[in-house]
Amino acid sequence: MINHIVSIKDIDKETILDIIQYAAKIEANPEVYAEKQKGKILSTIFFEPSTRTRLSFESAMLRLGGKVIGIADPKTSSLKKGESISDTIRMAAAYSDIIVMRHFLEGSGRVAAEYSSVPVVSGGTGIQEHPTQALLDLYTIYKEFGRIDNLTIGLLGDLRYGRTIPSLLYAFAKFNNVKIYLYSPQQLRARMTVLSDVEDKLEYRVEDNLEDTIDQLDVLYVTRVQKERFPDEQAYERVKGSFIISPDTLKNAKENMIVMHPLPRVGEIEYDVDDLPQARYFQQAKNGVWTRMSILDKLLEERK
Amino acid sequence: MINHIVSIKDIDKETILDIIQYAAKIEANPEVYAEKQKGKILSTIFFEPSTRTRLSFESAMLRLGGKVIGIADPKTSSLKKGESISDTIRMAAAYSDIIVMRHFLEGSGRVAAEYSSVPVVSGGTGIQEHPTQALLDLYTIYKEFGRIDNLTIGLLGDLRYGRTIPSLLYAFAKFNNVKIYLYSPQQLRARMTVLSDVEDKLEYRVEDNLEDTIDQLDVLYVTRVQKERFPDEQAYERVKGSFIISPDTLKNAKENMIVMHPLPRVGEIEYDVDDLPQARYFQQAKNGVWTRMSILDKLLEERK
Amino acid sequence: MINHIVSIKDIDKETILDIIQYAAKIEANPEVYAEKQKGKILSTIFFEPSTRTRLSFESAMLRLGGKVIGIADPKTSSLKKGESISDTIRMAAAYSDIIVMRHFLEGSGRVAAEYSSVPVVSGGTGIQEHPTQALLDLYTIYKEFGRIDNLTIGLLGDLRYGRTIPSLLYAFAKFNNVKIYLYSPQQLRARMTVLSDVEDKLEYRVEDNLEDTIDQLDVLYVTRVQKERFPDEQAYERVKGSFIISPDTLKNAKENMIVMHPLPRVGEIEYDVDDLPQARYFQQAKNGVWTRMSILDKLLEERK
Repeated sequence: MINHIVSIKDIDKETILDIIQYAAKIEANPEVYAEKQKGKILSTIFFEPSTRTRLSFESAMLRLGGKVIGIADPKTSSLKKGESISDTIRMAAAYSDIIVMRHFLEGSGRVAAEYSSVPVVSGGTGIQEHPTQALLDLYTIYKEFGRIDNLTIGLLGDLRYGRTIPSLLYAFAKFNNVKIYLYSPQQLRARMTVLSDVEDKLEYRVEDNLEDTIDQLDVLYVTRVQKERFPDEQAYERVKGSFIISPDTLKNAKENMIVMHPLPRVGEIEYDVDDLPQARYFQQAKNGVWTRMSILDKLLEERK
Repeated sequence: MINHIVSIKDIDKETILDIIQYAAKIEANPEVYAEKQKGKILSTIFFEPSTRTRLSFESAMLRLGGKVIGIADPKTSSLKKGESISDTIRMAAAYSDIIVMRHFLEGSGRVAAEYSSVPVVSGGTGIQEHPTQALLDLYTIYKEFGRIDNLTIGLLGDLRYGRTIPSLLYAFAKFNNVKIYLYSPQQLRARMTVLSDVEDKLEYRVEDNLEDTIDQLDVLYVTRVQKERFPDEQAYERVKGSFIISPDTLKNAKENMIVMHPLPRVGEIEYDVDDLPQARYFQQAKNGVWTRMSILDKLLEERK
Repeated sequence: MINHIVSIKDIDKETILDIIQYAAKIEANPEVYAEKQKGKILSTIFFEPSTRTRLSFESAMLRLGGKVIGIADPKTSSLKKGESISDTIRMAAAYSDIIVMRHFLEGSGRVAAEYSSVPVVSGGTGIQEHPTQALLDLYTIYKEFGRIDNLTIGLLGDLRYGRTIPSLLYAFAKFNNVKIYLYSPQQLRARMTVLSDVEDKLEYRVEDNLEDTIDQLDVLYVTRVQKERFPDEQAYERVKGSFIISPDTLKNAKENMIVMHPLPRVGEIEYDVDDLPQARYFQQAKNGVWTRMSILDKLLEERK
């Protein structure tokens, strides 16, 4: 096991499988783990606001019998007073047994781990690290197919600006024979720096058209096309519509293909899709709790 | 029992009495309930800020042995990213066992209950639903008089814009022979839509003058006249003073009349009233904890 | 013991030593206290944002087995609706068993204690009260030297605007033969009202130069020189540099001198100092948890 989770790149395939399989054990019998970290305190230090990641980690810690303190909003805390990340983290380490941090700066997770006397987990750091999102996504896929190897994954939407897609690509690159189909507007394509990092480990294809290739996918992973990424409202509106999933979009999909989304969505998957057997995004959110229980418990046990 | 609490209109008299009487049992022996919901998680999802309602629910859940996660401020969460209520609620339901939601939109409580896989409680939704405030108010009255039937209640202040007054009126309409006296500035009168809904079930009178009729009241329920409801500062100042309760105001009141207020107050009850035997507003706040313990426990037990 | 902690001035030497010595007992065997206040709820009511003080108190309450509710940001709560402190505190007292309040108004802690039915602790009130910071500072010194009496303490930086320095001066004045050296920019000198209050009880000297006198100090207590205290950026930049501690600054210090800082720092202690044997500021942060556990536990036990 490792001592901190700051980048999916640090975590080898065996450790990933270990985390996933432990999440499955926890999901099967959560009551067994309900007092596992009794008396332990998680601090959630969010320099950028977040709902899902924060609540999901808090729920995970509470479901292990632990407790939570934290900063949900940097604007209402002394974080804005200009303190360094290393000082903030040492403060949090003085008050708690494990830290989840979100920060906008590249490398901030690494700095935090360096200075902390307790385990640090990235809850999204810099522009490409969101390791626990990748792990819960892998858990969702693993639950469905019993493997990550030999799957064909479509990634659709904004592949450039979110932290989720790079983390996922680095994660898939650790497995064997994963094929990636990339669907995105021109200006939201995956970064070449990321693709060149993974191109020796997985096969990827930039595709123009979901309709023609959806029948080859095991997983369709949809992401939000964020308005704030476009120079103006018009540019956003022009592109938005081309990446919306409807029941009709899925008509040629494999029977056991699943649709995933890190949420929140703002229209890119129509509500009619929610009731289709392919929809997995709400289970995926729930899987976040099991995966984060697995991560927190493993890191805390390692430290003992 | 019911599965969600989104409107006082949904709750029949028997269920109201059931909740009230259970609150009384809890208040009598809180230690019996101190571990009742151990391991269960409440999420408080507030699209509008609130202090009292949120803290009171959190205290209630903790006093049942449960735990709490939540969003206190929509501005610092992904709620602002444009996600639908139904998606937010399904997220919260993935992370917790019961949800308290406050939202400014009419019907939002109903939507939340529709989509949630766990019980949903309105912590104030739309312009007229605040069912748990009504329930704690009824509990306060019931503790005092042993009944809700056959009482005369004065409602004073802003009867138009708060959620409390309509919820209370719908609640009183479920009981027998409740008489309502309405005291308010012209522009803050109770909405006709609400009054016409309840006029078959209770007797109400719009009164100009508290002094002349206070001797007939069992309860004087005072509400805050909010500055933001008036077109300008002057209009507010002109009216404000006419609805202030002083010890002198109460000199003709019945000996066992009680003064209630949902709080916060900003001057509409003078501090000198606090020490009079009629003052019940701080006990009323405390009653909120017992009533919400009753509600949370009943909904969680129902779900088992 | 006392019922509330609103000012260091209220607390006599015996009580201070009692709190400090109990903190030491807790630090030595924290597991003994892990369920001590089970079922008890702390409410943290912060009219001014704070990170350290709030998280440190929350951690302390959780490490006693208690629970926490609170308001981290007045802007997102009904505190802004114009409610009086006494009403807010009575509300919090209805929901919880002990209250920590931060408020910008002079005397606010006293008002809170007056109206509360549960113990109130100042988490920083007015311009000179931060009693728990003073207590944790004393605990840090006591751990190091086994006494507070007969020590020479240098206070450096902004001695005028923070709450920490006056609280510390009033605290030291309760002990015997404490010598204080004051180092600050002209416009950030300690207030004469404070100095005249303590001048009979301790010896103080306003010093121009740390270098010449550092060899006489047992403790060098550094505080942040806040940009917002200066009329303009230039005035700040002119002064900032003169009060920065580097390893070189410490070369003439006594071998067992310690460097303290209430944190956060923004450059006034260089990072190279962190690894020197004199650095105590991160332990000081940790000591805050033990000291606050001692305070919370004592006040709650007193109330039983």
